[in-house]
Amino acid sequence: MDSYLIQVNGHGDHAPMLDVHLKSTGNTISAGKVKGRKPRWAVRASEMSKKTFNPVRAIVDSMKVEPNPKKAMISLSLGDPTVFGNLPTNDEVTRAVKEVLDSGQCNGYAPSVGYQSCREAVAAYYNCPEAPLKAQDVILTSGCSQAIELALAVLANPGQNILVPRPGFSLYKTLALSMGIEVKLYNLLPEKAWEIDLEHLESLVDEKTACLIVNNPSNPCGSVFSKSHLQEILAVASRQCVPILADEIYGDMVFADCKYEPIATLSTNVPILSCGGLAKRWLVPGWRMGWILIHDRRDIFGNEIRDGLLRLSQRILGPCTIVQGALERILHRTPPEFYHNTLSILKSNADLCYAALSAIPGLQPVRPAGAMYLMCFEYPNFFRVVITVPEEMILEACSRIQEFCEMHYQGAEGAQDLECDK
Amino acid sequence: MDSYLIQVNGHGDHAPMLDVHLKSTGNTISAGKVKGRKPRWAVRASEMSKKTFNPVRAIVDSMKVEPNPKKAMISLSLGDPTVFGNLPTNDEVTRAVKEVLDSGQCNGYAPSVGYQSCREAVAAYYNCPEAPLKAQDVILTSGCSQAIELALAVLANPGQNILVPRPGFSLYKTLALSMGIEVKLYNLLPEKAWEIDLEHLESLVDEKTACLIVNNPSNPCGSVFSKSHLQEILAVASRQCVPILADEIYGDMVFADCKYEPIATLSTNVPILSCGGLAKRWLVPGWRMGWILIHDRRDIFGNEIRDGLLRLSQRILGPCTIVQGALERILHRTPPEFYHNTLSILKSNADLCYAALSAIPGLQPVRPAGAMYLMCFEYPNFFRVVITVPEEMILEACSRIQEFCEMHYQGAEGAQDLECDK
Ligand SMILES: Cc1ncc(COP(=O)(O)O)c(C=O)c1O
Ligand SMILES: Cc1ncc(COP(=O)(O)O)c(C=O)c1O
Repeated sequence: MDSYLIQVNGHGDHAPMLDVHLKSTGNTISAGKVKGRKPRWAVRASEMSKKTFNPVRAIVDSMKVEPNPKKAMISLSLGDPTVFGNLPTNDEVTRAVKEVLDSGQCNGYAPSVGYQSCREAVAAYYNCPEAPLKAQDVILTSGCSQAIELALAVLANPGQNILVPRPGFSLYKTLALSMGIEVKLYNLLPEKAWEIDLEHLESLVDEKTACLIVNNPSNPCGSVFSKSHLQEILAVASRQCVPILADEIYGDMVFADCKYEPIATLSTNVPILSCGGLAKRWLVPGWRMGWILIHDRRDIFGNEIRDGLLRLSQRILGPCTIVQGALERILHRTPPEFYHNTLSILKSNADLCYAALSAIPGLQPVRPAGAMYLMCFEYPNFFRVVITVPEEMILEACSRIQEFCEMHYQGAEGAQDLECDK
Repeated sequence: MDSYLIQVNGHGDHAPMLDVHLKSTGNTISAGKVKGRKPRWAVRASEMSKKTFNPVRAIVDSMKVEPNPKKAMISLSLGDPTVFGNLPTNDEVTRAVKEVLDSGQCNGYAPSVGYQSCREAVAAYYNCPEAPLKAQDVILTSGCSQAIELALAVLANPGQNILVPRPGFSLYKTLALSMGIEVKLYNLLPEKAWEIDLEHLESLVDEKTACLIVNNPSNPCGSVFSKSHLQEILAVASRQCVPILADEIYGDMVFADCKYEPIATLSTNVPILSCGGLAKRWLVPGWRMGWILIHDRRDIFGNEIRDGLLRLSQRILGPCTIVQGALERILHRTPPEFYHNTLSILKSNADLCYAALSAIPGLQPVRPAGAMYLMCFEYPNFFRVVITVPEEMILEACSRIQEFCEMHYQGAEGAQDLECDK
């Protein structure tokens, strides 16, 4: 029996087209026995691949701005602290990996959740009385991106929704939509140093809400939540029984006058998956080393979520073993001066940038308290500036922005959505 | 309005249970306005995580065999060539990564499909007149596992099916089922050196068949397909218009009397995604460096599949950059003696193992022609032996197997399914 598969393709660049795909059904056929019309080639990309969309990549890749030949381009857009060479990682970090290479001991497969000794090292590093961690609470992943992917994949089914900050990091939406998970955006309040609009947040919870993403310190806002604000967020999660996915990749990257509180240290009952990694604090984003810390003191995730994370990790078998093998040394040997130095450069760049932009008509920068970003807003548009750029370049960039604004500024209007890349 | 979500959980270790999950619906609620019954915690692992099941991991993790205290355990099960220390990688491979670390040039984010220069290096390495490759035909991935994951994810929608060898590598099924893709197993024929039963293969094709997985050289069979057999396989794919996912991670790992033909070099029209990586030939499986080579000379995949792979790669942003940065040097500098030496050890172990097992009543080993495995069969059961184990241990293991078989062998019966881990 022959059957017709009619496939309607309404995606991509082309106008929707009707593609008639003809194949004989199985079982009754074997070589030489094929009767009727010949099958035709009709290979289509899956729905999932079409739903996977990284908005910033799309803009960056299709952006066709002719750079001004008289001015060197200064990119303020990419959250990669390594591009300008002014923020190298520490020698101890590189040395740790070289020692692992010399040992020849970390070339084989590790367990898909990571070497036991490395999980122990991460657990010991982040362990504290208010939020104790053991090796089995740590899952090593290929970057914080995969940590977020696994956390979402284990917590949410297609058709459920997650609560995501606006403005926020674009990957949350990219991953969620690719998995058929709905995204509900909760507002951050620029006038309150980008705190969460808690009423708005709570109003979005419904019976299909699978988790709440809290990103602190924030990309793109450069904000750091206070202890009391984190407690308010936890109160919403607790009242509504919604687990938290805490994106803490910028954890500990806060300026001197401010304190970073891991959200799990403030919670007694809300189960939390905290995602982090080496990318930002250790300045090696390309190394793709991330982790999930499982905080579940009331046993609400239970074995089920742990087991689910384990299963999901077995799809691609964990992060690179030579970085894994170096992890304990990286965490213990990196000198405190390295972290301080990075932060003082970021802080001084932030101050510089804040001062320069404040003076510009039509711009309202918000002074960052951590991470690597500064947000400027003036309805209808926001923009984000990366503050890992060397001082001279920041100043030059700000003066170009000033020139531009002085030419074009015409006063305030409405508001618009915004999302940010790494 | 309140609503009830009734969730039936029939997976995992427990008896099916009815979990009544109670939450208020959104929009009408905000802090302080919550009325009616209080929500309760009910966090469940997603269906996808439950569908993700790595059968060998499950066996290995739950295996409770007390080792014989008088005999050291000899594991013949794990396809990791590094476990015994007799097959170290080459110094040039390690040196290449150390040079990259010293340069400090590869710590930042790479494009999610890999550095352009590394894609060029891989393309140049595998390029040949019959199957030309350019940088844009190469996508770097986190191990061959992720290459397979992306290839399946772009080619198949939930509800479609893929054709998978039996016996075969277990990851195909693990990944497919987790994505809701059906697996149809086609038979390999032990009596024909594990060639594909082509009639059986073709009989399985139906209108929902998204791709055909061809694994050559084979895990677990240690077999290497001849040119003419590969042409027959291509003829089926061509007649049925089914694209091929070629798992060629053991490419070029064949013994002297045999030739490895990349399947794409023999095809004129069948579009092929060939998956490979550093794991086996360069003896560094933990480094998680893999790739997809896109062969599409008739433009059947077209932009759509390329674009889909690009989008999917943006979920976790590619493999570790310090290994990427070393790739060109690894491919060019590794001395030919290294590959020859590995193969001659494998070949001599294979011969040794084959001879020893052939003498055992009830076992019918098939002489391997490549890869790192030897299959022994005698209905009702098969077993696979890893031949990367040092000589003395292989001999000791074979003599233990002999002792066991002599005690227990009782003659032949029916057949059974089998799948293998890495
Ligand atoms: C908020 C946030 N989360 C996660 C990530 C991803 O981190 P990784 O590079 O470790 O995948 C980024 C990267 O920019 C980020 O800004
Ligand atoms: C046939 C086959 N394909 C793919 C893989 C996975 O390779 P990787 O470790 O690069 O993910 C293996 C690993 O054993 C294998 O045997």
